[in-house]
Amino acid sequence: MNQPDPAGGRARRRGAIRGRAPAKTAIQQMPWMLPQFSDPPVAPLDSEGVARIDANAMRILKEIGIDFLHEDAKRVLHGAGAEVDPDSDRVRMDEQFVRAHLATAPSSFTVTPRNPEHALVWGAGHYCFGAVASPPNVRDLDHGRREGTREDCRDLLRLTQFFNCIHFNSGYPVEPVDVHPSVRHLDALYDALTLCDKVMHAYSLGTARIEDGMEMVRIAAGLTHREFDAAPRMFTNINSSSPLKHDWPMLDGAMRCAKRGQPVIVTPFTLCGAMAPVTLAGAVSLQTAEALAAIVLLQIVNPGAPVVYGSFTSNVDMKSGAPAFGTPEYARATQMSGQMARFYGLPMRASNACVANYPDGQAVWESSASLQACNSAHCNIVYHAAGWLESGLCTSFEKFVMDCELLQQMNAYQSAVGVSEDDLAFDAIRAVGPHDHFLGAAHTQARYKTAFYSPFLSDWRNFESWELAGAEHAERRANTLYKQILREFEPPPMDEAIREELAAFVAKRREEGGAPTDF
Amino acid sequence: MNQPDPAGGRARRRGAIRGRAPAKTAIQQMPWMLPQFSDPPVAPLDSEGVARIDANAMRILKEIGIDFLHEDAKRVLHGAGAEVDPDSDRVRMDEQFVRAHLATAPSSFTVTPRNPEHALVWGAGHYCFGAVASPPNVRDLDHGRREGTREDCRDLLRLTQFFNCIHFNSGYPVEPVDVHPSVRHLDALYDALTLCDKVMHAYSLGTARIEDGMEMVRIAAGLTHREFDAAPRMFTNINSSSPLKHDWPMLDGAMRCAKRGQPVIVTPFTLCGAMAPVTLAGAVSLQTAEALAAIVLLQIVNPGAPVVYGSFTSNVDMKSGAPAFGTPEYARATQMSGQMARFYGLPMRASNACVANYPDGQAVWESSASLQACNSAHCNIVYHAAGWLESGLCTSFEKFVMDCELLQQMNAYQSAVGVSEDDLAFDAIRAVGPHDHFLGAAHTQARYKTAFYSPFLSDWRNFESWELAGAEHAERRANTLYKQILREFEPPPMDEAIREELAAFVAKRREEGGAPTDF
Repeated sequence: MNQPDPAGGRARRRGAIRGRAPAKTAIQQMPWMLPQFSDPPVAPLDSEGVARIDANAMRILKEIGIDFLHEDAKRVLHGAGAEVDPDSDRVRMDEQFVRAHLATAPSSFTVTPRNPEHALVWGAGHYCFGAVASPPNVRDLDHGRREGTREDCRDLLRLTQFFNCIHFNSGYPVEPVDVHPSVRHLDALYDALTLCDKVMHAYSLGTARIEDGMEMVRIAAGLTHREFDAAPRMFTNINSSSPLKHDWPMLDGAMRCAKRGQPVIVTPFTLCGAMAPVTLAGAVSLQTAEALAAIVLLQIVNPGAPVVYGSFTSNVDMKSGAPAFGTPEYARATQMSGQMARFYGLPMRASNACVANYPDGQAVWESSASLQACNSAHCNIVYHAAGWLESGLCTSFEKFVMDCELLQQMNAYQSAVGVSEDDLAFDAIRAVGPHDHFLGAAHTQARYKTAFYSPFLSDWRNFESWELAGAEHAERRANTLYKQILREFEPPPMDEAIREELAAFVAKRREEGGAPTDF
Repeated sequence: MNQPDPAGGRARRRGAIRGRAPAKTAIQQMPWMLPQFSDPPVAPLDSEGVARIDANAMRILKEIGIDFLHEDAKRVLHGAGAEVDPDSDRVRMDEQFVRAHLATAPSSFTVTPRNPEHALVWGAGHYCFGAVASPPNVRDLDHGRREGTREDCRDLLRLTQFFNCIHFNSGYPVEPVDVHPSVRHLDALYDALTLCDKVMHAYSLGTARIEDGMEMVRIAAGLTHREFDAAPRMFTNINSSSPLKHDWPMLDGAMRCAKRGQPVIVTPFTLCGAMAPVTLAGAVSLQTAEALAAIVLLQIVNPGAPVVYGSFTSNVDMKSGAPAFGTPEYARATQMSGQMARFYGLPMRASNACVANYPDGQAVWESSASLQACNSAHCNIVYHAAGWLESGLCTSFEKFVMDCELLQQMNAYQSAVGVSEDDLAFDAIRAVGPHDHFLGAAHTQARYKTAFYSPFLSDWRNFESWELAGAEHAERRANTLYKQILREFEPPPMDEAIREELAAFVAKRREEGGAPTDF
């Protein structure tokens, strides 16, 4: 299952069989769906609070300004009327300018991957989950913690495809460190596009990587250039270099995506007390200023280009300066960010983040809190939804599966509660009376199969049965499950001609040396 | 630390020192507080949905009726105008009758234990947490799972007293199975009242137990009978025998408490698909009918007696019929119950429940979901808030500590977000600029000590440091902590004369044979 492909990538045999349905018998999971929030969002700010953070962000943009470390970006902004300091990278924008360009950004849009059945709506009360992205390390219970390899990366891509609750790929689910950085994006995206048919991310790490990414997504979907440019097909995510700075590689990728109408998530890295003020209102103000600065640039580059307001504001451990996630402050910052995104009419991104080093209770209380923050904030795009450990330094195979259990529960939670006569069950209550139970009632029998959410990972056996079966902890059961899923995995169908075109592109670009690695 | 007291109870030496402050150095915990909800409750029902469940409950009470297995209760209800079937235990009440008696129940009240600094407000937007109650088994990482003993019970009472986030005792944190059932309540309540000074629960398991419980709480607080009767000093919890039945022992205890103005929580045991309809609307209707039936009785017994609407509605595992907790259905049922409690103007109780057999990730995802259900439902009284495993069949020392971490986080979450000029930090953002960070900024330095919630159990060290320190999982760290807490524990002060009076009462009641055990 895990033999490394020859360099440049070759089609795996069984993956080439068109239309073959995957077996997927490892677990009974919920079907693919585009879930929607059913409760109103939680709003820690009143409308005056939102207005004050907006005003503060506008003041930061006008009076302090943001550094854009990209000559083209500065030229574009200057041409549109922003104040660009001739002696530095500082760009200042006034409120009217910012609002005028924000006005062209869509509040929601559809992203369509090579399998159109996996198209996603970003915004409009929908939410979706992406697999963990970019940790350099990986761990599982059998082999412990180690640097990520292409083999690990491919296994995690298989899990990304297998789980219906995972809606998109967010990049390398673990860095394939055994592939040279100049061609890593080629091999990994080849693997992702052949093992998954969901929405893909390409890294904005300079010109070559993002152009290669867009081209490979185009080829994999069998699209002409015109078709690719006509609608969102994939996306990129950029981070500001907080405080107050957008770097060249990310700006370059973002502008190239925007030019071709591909979505850009702009996610400042505003940890309270480190790269941002220690106060939540200060940090979310800074996050907003940094996000809007890049979003305005992208709207100037291509008015109407799909963009997303990204939130990564959390606190740090004031004892060590290390980031903390899943904290009460993370929840409030995420909810505040949701309010700001809705105020600007933009889709919003946050994350399922945690600090824990092992998929234990701490990992779950941090991730549960992060996911609840996303739910209560009405976060549309949940990054790192499955698999993240160690503040993003490690992917865990078991945590991936455990997180998917949490994601399914969040989806099941959104169900509406019925109060029809049938739901009220008066006749059943009368029929059962005080001397019987409802297990055998006709009202129960007609509904029990679909009445309740059925977890795939929770062990609901009593102690004696659980102990007889080996007394396995949740992470051990997750370990068994992920290996079974990988054993049974069938990649989604791909036309052989397309696969060959994709492989040829990778081979050509490898021959050309891939991407420069000196920035 | 754990030498069993001689039968009848003798004062532990150091506990008798008046006014001595406990050391409590094991962890840095949040101070004692009466937290309040800061977000609006989540409401899965619209006002019509609430009205439909109310109407359904009223119809159950009028057309089907509830069995009251207690002659006095039936006499009281008949005297007040309810329709009592002469040939059975069935009592029917019409809507006007129910609403008239509900109207005398207070929407909030204060419960004052022997240490008045630990008084609790039940209702009025406040919430509080009780220790786990009544599991017959106990486990810890050192000794595994076993039947509970008085020694275990006492250790758990010490944790109940130690943690500021635990507001009240809910009965035996584990059943002291090594004490005979006839005198178990005497020894356990003696231990509870000498090791804790927080609000106490007494079991409504027949006449003797509840009368002994009230008398012991009165003695421990140094109150006259008149003073005891004048205000809530402790409480009891009763469960209906769902569907549609209130049993003798619980009704007897509840009426005795209500007569003396002591709070009664009425908690039907309405698991969807087993003792209640498979539909949430049906189960919450049944729960409401059963709860209101007992509450009406208690208001007739003593108009204005403090009562609580208890919710325990969850689903069962339809594969096995076993109860499930922390499920999406549990969350919705709890939120619906909160809506019904507010509709009737009553404080509301729910639980931090889980099914897991071990304090692993599953235990935490189930408990996190249960606590989030309580938070979003505005549940005022959270039962089993710390220590519960196995659907209530086992108490875990480590889970107790892990839950307290979650409870503190829920309290920290309620903090308001400031948006003052100072919070917005514009000047700090300008001063730091794009080439520095905020760690050393004056704005940060002035606030960092109290800016963020600081967990006592989360390990936020990086992987290398965590591994060097032994790579301990959360439950292992909890194990170390609870043992340290027990080593350092100092009981709260108690007047020696009061202790002697309490011990003498226990000795006398033991001599008399305690409580009958034949019901």
